[in-house]
This record gives sequence, C-alpha cells and structure tokens, in this order.
Amino acid sequence: MNVKLVSFTPNPEKIPAMAAKLTHSKIKPEDLGKTSDDELKAILNQVMNLGHTSVIEHTCFTFTISDVSRSLTHQLVRHRVASYAQQSQRYVDFKEPNYVTPPKIAENKKMKKAYDETMKNIWKEYNKLLDMGIPAEDSRFVLPNATCTNIMITMNARSLLNFFELRCCQHAQWEIRELANKMLKEVKKVAPTIFKNAGPACKSKKICPENKKDCPLYPK
Amino acid sequence: MNVKLVSFTPNPEKIPAMAAKLTHSKIKPEDLGKTSDDELKAILNQVMNLGHTSVIEHTCFTFTISDVSRSLTHQLVRHRVASYAQQSQRYVDFKEPNYVTPPKIAENKKMKKAYDETMKNIWKEYNKLLDMGIPAEDSRFVLPNATCTNIMITMNARSLLNFFELRCCQHAQWEIRELANKMLKEVKKVAPTIFKNAGPACKSKKICPENKKDCPLYPK
Amino acid sequence: MNVKLVSFTPNPEKIPAMAAKLTHSKIKPEDLGKTSDDELKAILNQVMNLGHTSVIEHTCFTFTISDVSRSLTHQLVRHRVASYAQQSQRYVDFKEPNYVTPPKIAENKKMKKAYDETMKNIWKEYNKLLDMGIPAEDSRFVLPNATCTNIMITMNARSLLNFFELRCCQHAQWEIRELANKMLKEVKKVAPTIFKNAGPACKSKKICPENKKDCPLYPK
Amino acid sequence: MNVKLVSFTPNPEKIPAMAAKLTHSKIKPEDLGKTSDDELKAILNQVMNLGHTSVIEHTCFTFTISDVSRSLTHQLVRHRVASYAQQSQRYVDFKEPNYVTPPKIAENKKMKKAYDETMKNIWKEYNKLLDMGIPAEDSRFVLPNATCTNIMITMNARSLLNFFELRCCQHAQWEIRELANKMLKEVKKVAPTIFKNAGPACKSKKICPENKKDCPLYPK
Repeated sequence: MNVKLVSFTPNPEKIPAMAAKLTHSKIKPEDLGKTSDDELKAILNQVMNLGHTSVIEHTCFTFTISDVSRSLTHQLVRHRVASYAQQSQRYVDFKEPNYVTPPKIAENKKMKKAYDETMKNIWKEYNKLLDMGIPAEDSRFVLPNATCTNIMITMNARSLLNFFELRCCQHAQWEIRELANKMLKEVKKVAPTIFKNAGPACKSKKICPENKKDCPLYPK
Repeated sequence: MNVKLVSFTPNPEKIPAMAAKLTHSKIKPEDLGKTSDDELKAILNQVMNLGHTSVIEHTCFTFTISDVSRSLTHQLVRHRVASYAQQSQRYVDFKEPNYVTPPKIAENKKMKKAYDETMKNIWKEYNKLLDMGIPAEDSRFVLPNATCTNIMITMNARSLLNFFELRCCQHAQWEIRELANKMLKEVKKVAPTIFKNAGPACKSKKICPENKKDCPLYPK
Repeated sequence: MNVKLVSFTPNPEKIPAMAAKLTHSKIKPEDLGKTSDDELKAILNQVMNLGHTSVIEHTCFTFTISDVSRSLTHQLVRHRVASYAQQSQRYVDFKEPNYVTPPKIAENKKMKKAYDETMKNIWKEYNKLLDMGIPAEDSRFVLPNATCTNIMITMNARSLLNFFELRCCQHAQWEIRELANKMLKEVKKVAPTIFKNAGPACKSKKICPENKKDCPLYPK
Repeated sequence: MNVKLVSFTPNPEKIPAMAAKLTHSKIKPEDLGKTSDDELKAILNQVMNLGHTSVIEHTCFTFTISDVSRSLTHQLVRHRVASYAQQSQRYVDFKEPNYVTPPKIAENKKMKKAYDETMKNIWKEYNKLLDMGIPAEDSRFVLPNATCTNIMITMNARSLLNFFELRCCQHAQWEIRELANKMLKEVKKVAPTIFKNAGPACKSKKICPENKKDCPLYPK
C-alpha cells in the first residue's frame, strides 16, 4: 500500500483560524492575513477544543493511494463528503496479476501457495477472455476483490476527522484501518493542531460509539 | 437482477407542488393541503418545464436491488446524494456460488463454460479458506467482481434525475444501465409528471454532455 | 411558530430495520417484508444502541414551518444534508407587517412598544418603495431579520439526529431551539425507537462537545 | 462588495489532470507528477470538453467576501456543496450602520434619502436595545436584510461551475450575480482552462434551463 499526500490547502492551519476569527469579530476579511501567527494558533486551539470543526472544512487534502484492493475502495467510496478519481477497470486492462494478500493468508505458507495459484488461474482466464475479444469491462467480472487499484481522494479536514473516527477503530477492517492510519500520519505532519486528537472515537471523543466494553481501548 | 420500489414519499407529486406553491405565495403552509389536485398538477408541470427541480428533492424513493454484481455496486455507491445499505462480505458468508454473467460471455457456449469453471474454482478456494479458519472478510479477497450482492438505496427525485441522465445513457456500462432503466420504469408509475422526460441527457435536456456526434441518439 | 410534519416515509421504523437486516443476512431483499414486526423492532433497537445510524437515512421527514424569523432560517439552511423550499422575498410581497418578537423584548412593555413602532416604520418604508415602483427584491432590503417567513424542509432521520444534537442544546439560539424541540416532539410520535435518545449531545451521547462544565446539563 | 481569493489548491489545473490520467492508465500514482505540463494540459482540455467534471472536484478555492447584504448570504448558503464561515450577529455587535443600497434606490436622490433615514432609525433602535441590555442575538431582530456581513466560502471547481451557471444568469438577483461574476473573474486568472466556458448555462452548455426565449442571451 502506497499513500502519498500530493496536495493540500496552503497554510492549512491558518485558513481555518482566519475563518474562526471572521465569525467572531468586526475585522475586514481583507485584513485577516495580518493576524499574528501566535493569535491564529491560539484561535485554532480554542475552536478545536470546543469541537467547532466547521471552520476546518476550509482546509482540504488530496492523496493518491495505490496497491490497495477493490475491497478497500468499495468501502472507501462510501464516504460521501469527499471526491474520488479511481482507476477504471473498463478503460484500463489489468493483464499482469497484481493483488493484495491478507496477512492471515500470507502468514501460512500452504495457504499462501493455494491463494497464489487461484490468482494465477483467475488472471489466466481474464487474459483469455480479453484475447477472445471480450471487452475489459466484461472480462473484469472474473477479477477478484483482491485486485490492486489506484485512487485519488480529496477530503476536507472535518470529513477526515470523521473518517479517522470510523476507520482507525480497532474494529474496522484491517486494510482500510492501515490506510486510515497512514493518511493520519501524513496530515499530522502538516496540520498538527487540527489532528492532535484525531483517531478512533475512543481517542478523539473519549467515547465508544459502539459501546464495546470488552475492547482493550474502551475509554475509562 | 431484481429491482423493487419498496417505499416512497406518500403523494410523491403533491409534496413538491406544495413546496413550489409555498415559495411563490402568501398562503399559510398549514393550508397548502387544501390546494386542488388540478392546481398542484399544473404547478408541478410548470416547475418541471422550467427546470426548477429543487422542489422534487422533497420526494424520496427507496429500492431494494438483488442479483447484481459488485462491479455494479462499486459504481452505484459513487452517487453521493443517496443513502445505501449493502450486504456485507465481512459478516455474511457466500458459500454458494452466486454470480452475474455478462451477456457477451453468456452468448458464447464455450466461453460460458470456461467462465463457469473459473467461478467454480474460485468458490472452491473461498470455501477452503473459510474451512481453514480464515475470516469471511479475508476469504472474500478471492471472490470475483461478478459476485452477487444485495443493496438498498434511497434517493430523492432530483438525485434520481441526475442518476438517470448518466446511467441510462448508451455509453454507460450495460449492467448499471439495465438497473437505471428498471428503476426509471418503477418511479414513472408513481410519479409520471416528475419523470416524464427522465432518461439520458439527450432525452431529458436535448444535449449530449459528452458531445458524441457519432451516437445514434445524438440530439438533432 | 407553527411546525407541521406533513409527510414521512411510510413505516418509518420498519424500513431502517429492513436495511439493517439486509446488510447482515442472506435473505433475498424481496423477502424482507416478511420479517416479523418483533424481529424488526429488536433489530432497530440494536442498531440504535450500537450507533449504526446509517440505516436510518432511509427514513425521511418533511415539515412545513411558518411564523419564524429570517434569522432562524438563515441558520437553518446551513444544515446541508437537507432539502428546502422557502418563501421568496423576490416573488412574494410582504405588504402586511408580520414579524417575530424576541421574548426578552416582548416581556418589557416599553421596549415592546418601541420595537413595534420601529417595525411599523420599516413596513411603511417598504410599502412606499413598492409603491414607487421599486421591485420587491430591492424593497425588501429594508425588511428586518424579524420578518416572518415560511419554509418546507425534508431531512432524513440521521441528519435530524445531528440537527437535534446541535439545536436542542441549551446554548443554541432560542428560536431555532424552540423549532428543534417542536420537530423532535413530532417525529417522536411516529418513530419513537429512532428518536428515543434524541436531543442535545449531553442526552444522546452523554458528552458535551463544547465541554461546558458550568452548564446545568453537563453530563456526569 | 469585496471579493478576495485567499487560497486555492496549489497547481489547480495539474491536480485534476493527474486525477484524469490516473483513471485511464496503468501509471503508478507516485509517478503522476512526472507527466509533462503539455500532456496534463491536453488531458484537462479533453475532460473539460467531454464534461467529465468529476476530476475538477480535487481543486478547491477559498474566498473572503465582505460588504454584501444578508439577503445575498441567505441565498448563497443554499449552495450545499460548499463550506462557509459567516460573521455572527449573535457574537458580534453591529453598532455602526453598515448596509447595502440597491442601485435602483441609490439612483434616485429622494428615494435614497428616505432609505438612509430609515436605516438611521433602525440602527438607533438597535443600539437602544443593546444599551438596555438586550443581547445582540435579540437586538439584531430589527436589523435589515441590507445589513453588511462578512463570509468565507470554500467550493471545489465543479461546485463553482454549477454556482456560475445559476448565479451568473441574467435572471439571478443582481447582488449575487455581481458576486458570482467577481468570483469567476478571480478563478479564471488561476485556472483558465477549467473555467474557460464557465458562466450561465447559455454560455457553458448552450442551453437555457428555464427556456426563456425572450432573453437576449437565449442560445441560438
């Protein structure tokens, strides 16, 4: 899995702080840029502590993600406050086998061998269908959930906080949890104040929305 | 593919007409219900002709869909102004082979046989993984795009119009086009005025957004 | 303020329970309707307790609201997961004074008199502008925030839960809080399980997102 | 009215082109950055001509807007695919009269005088209420639609195209049309390919959604 933060709003923590200042003062918006960095930092800390996260919507992050399965992306694109561009299985052919192996399968040699064999056979059939003139959009019907895909995603910081609450959770599926953790690591580097408490709800909100009392991370 | 309209806003064409009347008159909202059916019908016709489709957002439709491929649903859930509930491959096992066969494969006996053989082998591996204690969420990595899935979807009428413009188009993928056509047929029965011009953009707007001049349906 | 629940998804608590069942079982969606009411009720209770509120998006509620101020609606329409139809100040004239008086002004006789006098003068000017041929869309520039307006709103149950968390809170502005409480009262009648814990976050989630420890409702 | 483009996605036309390339090729996303500027420009031109505007969602623009009326912002915030931060009339006092005068009133000396007089009286009452201890959130009930407000807005390029179609139209209200035109002028400077055909639907799509045949701009 490769996760790259390819772009984000310049001054990702200044813009939301300026937004917050705009809502509560008489200052001309044209003059917001003159606010000192210290004041902006203090404002951002305060709004984050109060949970007034609407202002962090003004900061957006764009990632490219590769070598993840279509299982993962089918879950990922369910997040609706986001923009996506995904590699098409209609317009791109996938002649070379390229797939994700779940750790629980990878760690067992025999199982892994059978899994690889199955994948080899699937791709043989896929290529055969292509060779017989079946369009890629139909040939792909044999391709597995494991098939690697590439995707670009843009989310604003508020939507990301929600994404992390759901997908960094212990009970999220392992692959999307790995993705969420990698994305979180990237955005923390450039927006440490916004994401200081980001993570599963037990970390960010000190609650377990699913009320799983047997989870080791259940907040005390 | 099974498509069933399981629920929709009662009086699906009256509510939008009442909404339209509310915006342009002094009438107390409490009295909107007294408007004659003829007047409401005339109002709805007018707003649809003017393209003022915001009012039809107040009418929602809920469908259940089964025996469609995961290829289809991965496209479907990209429509963000909608609500989904999809059969989980984490919590449900799919021990019995159940898959969609593209018509171009089905129509060739030899191809069909090889396709079925591949599916049989995939499911054999899937069941073997389950039997060896691999959780469903990991075993499913071998399952193909063709795997059948069930999904419930709720969309408002405006979002549906957009869905039909994109997915009833000749150039949409065949399976989702079939779904869109079936959904359109269902909603036309209960909301004929709203959906009278619904369909691909060449029908609904008399334009081809992709400007495909070689398409037989290109508007003249 | 008048609040009327004019329409909602039939069987508002059955549809979400069916959605939940669909996600976790092999049942054909066509057969979901055969599930017993007791089972559906148990399912809904469970998903609500787990906070799996995505399924309640399939139930929508439509309200008409009248005799509220434009201050209120300017806040209301900031909720983006919702549909609105509002009485237009461009296409409707408001010749008769009709406005909301804040309780803190109404309770002081002298203040109330001055307030009413101001309103009378504003409407005199409004009518004068109309009489001189100024279009309603420009004449309304003198009309106050207090001016009464009518609006229709459709929200799904999940978006409503969020609306109630924010707007039933003690710290919300009084007029929109009154609206939220009235809406909550209406939906509770028809969907008691969905909304059993609905209200401000201190009630629904046992947390205070703003961490206002001095609030009498601060959760212990 | 002041409109300032305060921030936008760096390389606003490269990111969408990279997104488009990702969907149709085997290239590793990590290598997208190596694509030549000429190729990216050609790709962007092609997707814009085909109307495949989903990729331009990856580019976002943030504006601050001041000296506009609350009439304008009440319309503006109805655009739901956007983020807003607006100057609060609950937390900021507006002791100094500051309001917008519609051109049709401004151009008539006598009318203008009466309008200014009304505003003066309104603000006198507003300040009186404040002085008597009425909170700003209640005192503002007398403030007019004309009252100036400040707002920050972030929209992605696709949502902006829609905004321009609706609000640059001859039939849009004059103040929001002026805003839309100013915003369009700003984004054209930094993303000329994305916005080359932007404007009312008669320009961008060569259709009149309202079918106003008597409009001088009706497309031939």
